[in-house]
Order: sequence, then structure tokens, then C-alpha cells
Amino acid sequence: MPDAIAATPAQVDAACRAAAAAFPALRDARDSRAAVLDGAADGLAALGDRLLDIAARETGLAIPRLAAERDRTVRTLRVFAGIVREGSWVEAAIDSAQPARLPARRPDLRRMLRPLGPVAVFGASNFPLAYGTAGGDTASALAAGCPVVVKGHPLHPETGAAVAAAVRRAIRDAGLPEGAFAELPAAGERERDVGRELVLHPAISAVGFTGSFAGGTALAALAASRPVPVPVFAEMGSVNPVFLLPGALERDAESLAERLFASVHAAAGQQCTKPGLIFLARGGGAERFTRTIAALAEASRPQAMLAPRLREAFLDRIAKVRAAPGVSVLARGAAGEPLQETLILGAEAADLHRTPTLWDECFGPSALLVRCDDARAMLDMAARIPGSLAAAIFAIEPDAAAASALTSILAGCVGRLVHDGVTTGVEVASATVHGGPFPATNQPHSSAVGPTAMVRWCRPVCQQDAPDGLLPPELRRPNPLGIARRVDGVVTTAPA
Amino acid sequence: MPDAIAATPAQVDAACRAAAAAFPALRDARDSRAAVLDGAADGLAALGDRLLDIAARETGLAIPRLAAERDRTVRTLRVFAGIVREGSWVEAAIDSAQPARLPARRPDLRRMLRPLGPVAVFGASNFPLAYGTAGGDTASALAAGCPVVVKGHPLHPETGAAVAAAVRRAIRDAGLPEGAFAELPAAGERERDVGRELVLHPAISAVGFTGSFAGGTALAALAASRPVPVPVFAEMGSVNPVFLLPGALERDAESLAERLFASVHAAAGQQCTKPGLIFLARGGGAERFTRTIAALAEASRPQAMLAPRLREAFLDRIAKVRAAPGVSVLARGAAGEPLQETLILGAEAADLHRTPTLWDECFGPSALLVRCDDARAMLDMAARIPGSLAAAIFAIEPDAAAASALTSILAGCVGRLVHDGVTTGVEVASATVHGGPFPATNQPHSSAVGPTAMVRWCRPVCQQDAPDGLLPPELRRPNPLGIARRVDGVVTTAPA
Repeated sequence: MPDAIAATPAQVDAACRAAAAAFPALRDARDSRAAVLDGAADGLAALGDRLLDIAARETGLAIPRLAAERDRTVRTLRVFAGIVREGSWVEAAIDSAQPARLPARRPDLRRMLRPLGPVAVFGASNFPLAYGTAGGDTASALAAGCPVVVKGHPLHPETGAAVAAAVRRAIRDAGLPEGAFAELPAAGERERDVGRELVLHPAISAVGFTGSFAGGTALAALAASRPVPVPVFAEMGSVNPVFLLPGALERDAESLAERLFASVHAAAGQQCTKPGLIFLARGGGAERFTRTIAALAEASRPQAMLAPRLREAFLDRIAKVRAAPGVSVLARGAAGEPLQETLILGAEAADLHRTPTLWDECFGPSALLVRCDDARAMLDMAARIPGSLAAAIFAIEPDAAAASALTSILAGCVGRLVHDGVTTGVEVASATVHGGPFPATNQPHSSAVGPTAMVRWCRPVCQQDAPDGLLPPELRRPNPLGIARRVDGVVTTAPA
Repeated sequence: MPDAIAATPAQVDAACRAAAAAFPALRDARDSRAAVLDGAADGLAALGDRLLDIAARETGLAIPRLAAERDRTVRTLRVFAGIVREGSWVEAAIDSAQPARLPARRPDLRRMLRPLGPVAVFGASNFPLAYGTAGGDTASALAAGCPVVVKGHPLHPETGAAVAAAVRRAIRDAGLPEGAFAELPAAGERERDVGRELVLHPAISAVGFTGSFAGGTALAALAASRPVPVPVFAEMGSVNPVFLLPGALERDAESLAERLFASVHAAAGQQCTKPGLIFLARGGGAERFTRTIAALAEASRPQAMLAPRLREAFLDRIAKVRAAPGVSVLARGAAGEPLQETLILGAEAADLHRTPTLWDECFGPSALLVRCDDARAMLDMAARIPGSLAAAIFAIEPDAAAASALTSILAGCVGRLVHDGVTTGVEVASATVHGGPFPATNQPHSSAVGPTAMVRWCRPVCQQDAPDGLLPPELRRPNPLGIARRVDGVVTTAPA
């Protein structure tokens, strides 16, 4: 199959059926699941420079950036293996029976998370490894016990095929059914059809998507149209506003310009957490900041974008932004077709009131500086921010009151709020939230990064008055796995 | 407003705006929220027999049943008050900074659940107190910090108004803004309009619904059509299958018939966990079971249903079921217009293959006995069960193999699996799951009963490198609330 341009309908069907058949084995084999994740990590690492070369050729991303992404992906797979082995992630909760309770006995209740079934994964073009074939969605779904069918990405098919081979080998080595993982090529005319058939297949229980707003909302609508709707977890990117409060701007104008320029420019701006809107209060600090960031942009080299179609989409968006009344180009980097230069645009706060499209994401190397009259005007802007993955506030002591008000507003519309740092760079850590209100995602309660990503592929199931023999090990009275469980309200590893 | 038949569009708008204005105060005032819940519990209890008389008159439910429901509602409100005061429900997670990590410093990450904003609540007709004005959805939303706007139920408006007055008083006594809670009357011609305006109002952040499949799916579609879609948590009822394995049936035929008849007949069968399908293997046990349950049905008295329109819907469903090839009426209780008698129907497993509607819920006093050839045929039936809130297995030692296989299948399609007990009766406990796959609910990861119900109205928010002054108390370094937090993977109440 890796040589084909796109899977046939029969191949899509076969992969989904095989995934359904593999589900019980994967669900019930904790140790083997952990072995698959570790095996995939080993396999990915063993691909070495060859994988990076393929990915660089297909995506235009720089080798060091891809190496870092590969290392992150390997680490993610290992983190999930550790979580599966440790076992407490199932959120086991036990309420003991109270035989003497009146007016009626209280039963014994035992709950834990259980996997939903086969998951369809749609990876992103901008993170071919971390959000690709064996990226966060695949790793978290396999960790939870869900077989995975990946829709291969047409912009990096060879990267995907190389990674898929490593995952398949890990599945085989762990003695699990091959149906537990498949990647379906999906380039050419059948690109959308493969995705559509996958989402509509009765064996598919959930969908993970990382990509554009249009793609995510279309898949969510498609999944909702099924006779039995299934959840779609779509991470769709966002505008990621940055607020430079007057004190911080006055003190650190130049260094803030350097940090923000690096964040905007990195990977040709093709990051879902790229700062898209930078709000700053008029004054000497703002002028120095603008001068510095403009100089950095002008001195910057153009970069390859992921694909011509992404560059076209970026240029279309930029044209729309530039056409808005009040918007001007403050600086642009050196041009060099077909490479893309980085652009710094400017507008007044009032312009954003007039032109709603200025609040939307520009996926590529650009940022819009928004000049506000004062900190109060910045708060007014913050209250209009659409749901975002991340936001950042730069503040020093004299900004305290505005920083506090901003924090309160932004915590209501973002998944992650960064203080005195840029929005790019998402830690693989348990407290990380990579999610946020619509339109950043369609499921604001979820996170696509970190251990909580596993929970997306599960639902809680309660067993009432079950004998030990009919309980999964996680819920049995002796607690044979020694996991942390909430027993009558108290977290403990004791028998119960 | 309580005297009006239905709120006007202006009143709907005013209630939603007031809820939005009250949100920050409710969100930030932990102790006051707990006081509101306790105050509402006190107020509900203080209404005494007067409330039960009103509810009995409006719903036809018996006073002892309503008294038990009232006590459960009071208990639920107090449980949520306790959870709010204790504070650990926010699932605080902290990953400490690692300044020396290479290639880059790891930031300090702090995450907790935060409330979404105003919630619209649509209560159920069958639990006018436990799933009404101050029922589980309202209590869990207020506990989470979300203002609530209830669409009053047209089948028990006076019950709703009496309860709403108690909640309003509790809000006032706690010093919170009145907008934190409102109930909008919604009877007559504007019943649907009030609901529609509520779900589409920009200030509404989430919707809770308990009721019919048609109602729940319509609200979910409506909410998805908003410019900014919001989550709908719809609990829509289910068929709740019961499996009587051969050994248990042979040994306990008569007592099983008594327990199941009581479960089917209670509250005129108007419970979302009523056993709708009872599977049993042919044989002497099945014959004794059938004789006994038939005799109990014939000796039973007819009961008032909640409203003429619910009885009409039940009779329509029964007519459809009876029209299916193979279905027969095995027994019916004494008739007594306009009361409704209890019906026991029978069919062969093969009949359910032929007529899909037999798998759907009948909301009222009926059950369909499904005769299977043997335990294997029962497993075959189990694999076809649509998503259900609950299921039950009755088994004894010789049934062990079948019970194990059934448990595995049913855990994949229900929220709660009861062993050797009936499906009705849902404990307010932390391990309870009152939820399940579609069509039982539209959000299989959630539960409408128990502490986890609060999580529905929240989303996780992460703050990165935040100074203590910009963190909520739950995440501050000294842990001023002394709550349990997951710090670098370990649950602790220590500072971090």
C-alpha cells in the first residue's frame, strides 16, 4: 500500500475492519501496548538521518528543526508508554458498598476510563512527525487501547510511510494483531474521499484532526451526520494574541522585539501557536519595539513554506488583511521566489473593530502589530479575542493592575496563558493544555498534548456490585496493579 | 415572571445577559457558591409537604416517590457544596520549572479546570426535582461556577417556580448577583421558542438537557449551528437491557421476576434506567420467570402517567412494537382510563433481527421479554445493543463463562453495568456513571450524576510561568487552600 497514491474504498474498509478486530487484544493488553509505544520510539530513533532527510525534502523544514521534532515525538511515545505501564491514568474510582445504609443498601460502585474503539487520525502538514503518523494523536490513542487508522498526509507521504513501517514493526514485535495500526495513503484525486470514507466507517469510534479550521469543522459535521455520531477532536489553530504592557514595553522594547520576531519567523510562521496579533500601547517603547522588529524582519531571509498550496493560502490571507482599512506593511524580509519572506503589518485598534477578518489566523510568517491608546484599550481588545490555543502577557511591576485584569479576561478565551514568554513551544508535560475554545478547537474540554490527550479516546464505565472475576485488574479489590485509585473519596494504592 | 405562561424574547435576553454579568462573581467566589448550594438545599427542604403536594398534582407521581426524590435532590446539592468547599475537584496539576534543562529551560506549568460561563438547563418531566429546576444539572453548573438559566418545564411549572424561588433566595442570602440563576417559564405556544432563543443566545456557554432523543438531538444540532458552537450534554434515555443467564434463571426465576417487575412498574416505567429488554434462555427457568412476571403484571394497578402527551407517545410506541412480527402481549395489568396499565410483551431473538425498532426505548410501564435459544444467542444479542445508560447481568457460578463474555461486550456499550441487580436506582456517588454511548447520550465521555457532572461545565486552562499574584488560589505556590494537586506526577497537598 505505501506505493499507491491513495487507498481504494476496499482498502479503507479493510483497514477499519482489521482495526475493529484488533481492538479487544489492544484494549486488554496493557504491557503490550506499552511495548508498542516504546518499540515505535526505538524504531523512529533508529531511522536516524534518513528520516530527517526525507522529511526535509518533503516539507522544506530545516533539519535541526526536524531533529528536534523527531526527538520530541520519540519522547512523547516513551512518556505514553510510561503512563500505560504505571496505570493510574484510568482514573479509577471506587465507592464501597454500605450494606446497612437506610432506606436502602448502597451498592459497590467501580468506575474507570475505557477506550472507545478504533480512532481515525488526520495529521498536520506543519509537524510531520510530532503531529503525523506516530504523533501525539496516534500515540495517545494507542496508549489508551484504541487501534489507529491514519489518513496519510499527501504533503509528506514518504515520511509517513517510513514512520508507519516502524510502528507496524513495533506492533508485530509486541505480538499484537497487525490491524491495531494502519496508514492509508491519501494523495491525488481520492485525498478527500479516503478521509470521508474513514470518518463514516461504522468501525471508527472517534477522530483526531490537526489542521485548518475548514478541515476540522468539515470533519466534525461529517461525523455528526453518521447514524451513530462519533466525537471529532479537531485542533484548528488560532491567532494567539500577545499583550505588551506599557511598563514591560518601555523597559524591554528591543529584547521583546527579538523574542517575538524569532517566534513569528520560526518554521516560516507555520506553527499553530505562532503569535498572530501583538497589542502594544502607544509611546516611546512601542516605537522602539516597532523599529527593532521591523529591522529584524528586513534583515531576515525568506523561507520555504510547506507546500505551494499553503503559500498561496497565506498570500491570499495577507492580501485580505492588507486590503483592510488602516492596515499597512511595516516591514518585509528579503524576497526570493518561491521562498516566502516574513511580513510585519501594523494597524490601529479601531481598525480591528471595523474589519472582523483581522481577528482570524494567518498561517505563515507574519504578525500584525496593533497599536492601542493605553492599557485600558488593550483590555478592550482582549475581551474580543476569539478562542485561542495560547496567549501571552508581558508585564513588569508597574503593569500589575492591567496584567491582573488581562489574565482574568484571557483565561476565559485561551487554553494556555504564557506570562513573560512567547506562545510557541508547547511542553510535553502533564499540566500542558494544547486546546482552547472554538475556533481554536471544537472540544474546549480537551488537550491534544500531554497525558490528558489519552482521555479523549475513552469514556468512563461503572460496574455496580461486580464480583472481582468480572472486573478489569484496575478495579479489582486487591488492586493487583498497585495503581492510585480514589476510594471513598481518598486517593490510595491500598486494596479496596 | 412566575405567573407568565412563557418568557418573552426580551426576558430570555435579559436573563442571559444578567447571567453573563454575574459570571465573574460566581466564578471567583468559592465559599459563596457552596453557601448557595447549601442554602438551596435548606430552602428545598423547608418547602416541606407543600412542594410534594404541588409536584404530585402536576406530575401524578406518588408522594413517597417524590419525597425520596426531594431528599435525593437536597443531598445532591449538599454533596456539591462539600465538593466546592473541599476544592480538589479542579484537578490542579503542576509541572515545576526545570531551569537547567537542555536544550532549553522547562517552564513552570499550572493547570486547573475553570467554568465555561452561563449554562442553559432543560430539565426532565419524569424527575421534576432531581432533574428539574435545582436538579443535578443546575447544581453541578452552579458548583462549577457557572450561572444557570433554566427553561421551565411546562408539565410542572408550579413545582419549578417554588424551587426557583428557593434558589433565588439562596443566591441573595449568599450575596451573589441575582443574575446567577433564573428560571424562564416556557409553556404554551412559546415553549420551543424560549428553548431555541436560550440555546442560540451568545451569552450561553453550554447546555444541559435531560429528556427525549428527539429533543436532545435537536438541541445539539441547534447549538452546533451557532456562529460559536457550544457543547450540549444531552441525556436521552435508553433501552437498558437485562440478561438473565441460565443458571441464575433456573435457580431464582421467581425472585428475579419480582425484582424486575418492580423495576419496570415503578413510577409507571417513566425512568431513564427502566429495564426495557429482558433476555432469557429458553427452559424451565424462563417459563417460571415468565409465568411469575405475567401474574405480577396482571395483578398490578394502573398508574397515572406524567401527562396525556407522554401516555399518547407510549401507546404509539407500544402499537409499533406490537405490530412487529412475532411480538405478543404476555400480560397486562388492570386498565382504568386515563391511567395506564403495565404491559409485559414477548418476542423471539430472531424477531429483533427483523424489526430494528424493537431496540428502541419505550418510555412507560412495559418490558419486552426476548427468548433466546441459549447463552450463546444471548451474547449475539448483546453485541447489537445500542448505547445505553445501564445494563444488568444476573449470573451464578455455572454461568461464569457467559457472564465474563457478556461483561466484556456490555462494558463496550453502556455507562453502568449492574451485576445481580436492577438498572433502576442511580446512586449519587463519585464512581457513578450516568451516561453512555449514543443514543443514550450525545457525549459519551460525560456523566450526569455524581461529582464528575461538574467537569462538563468546565475546561482546563494552563498558565505558564505565572507569578503567584496572577494565579487563582488553587494554583498558587503555597497552596493556600490545601487542596490535593498533582505536582510533578505525584498527588500532594504540599506547597509547590
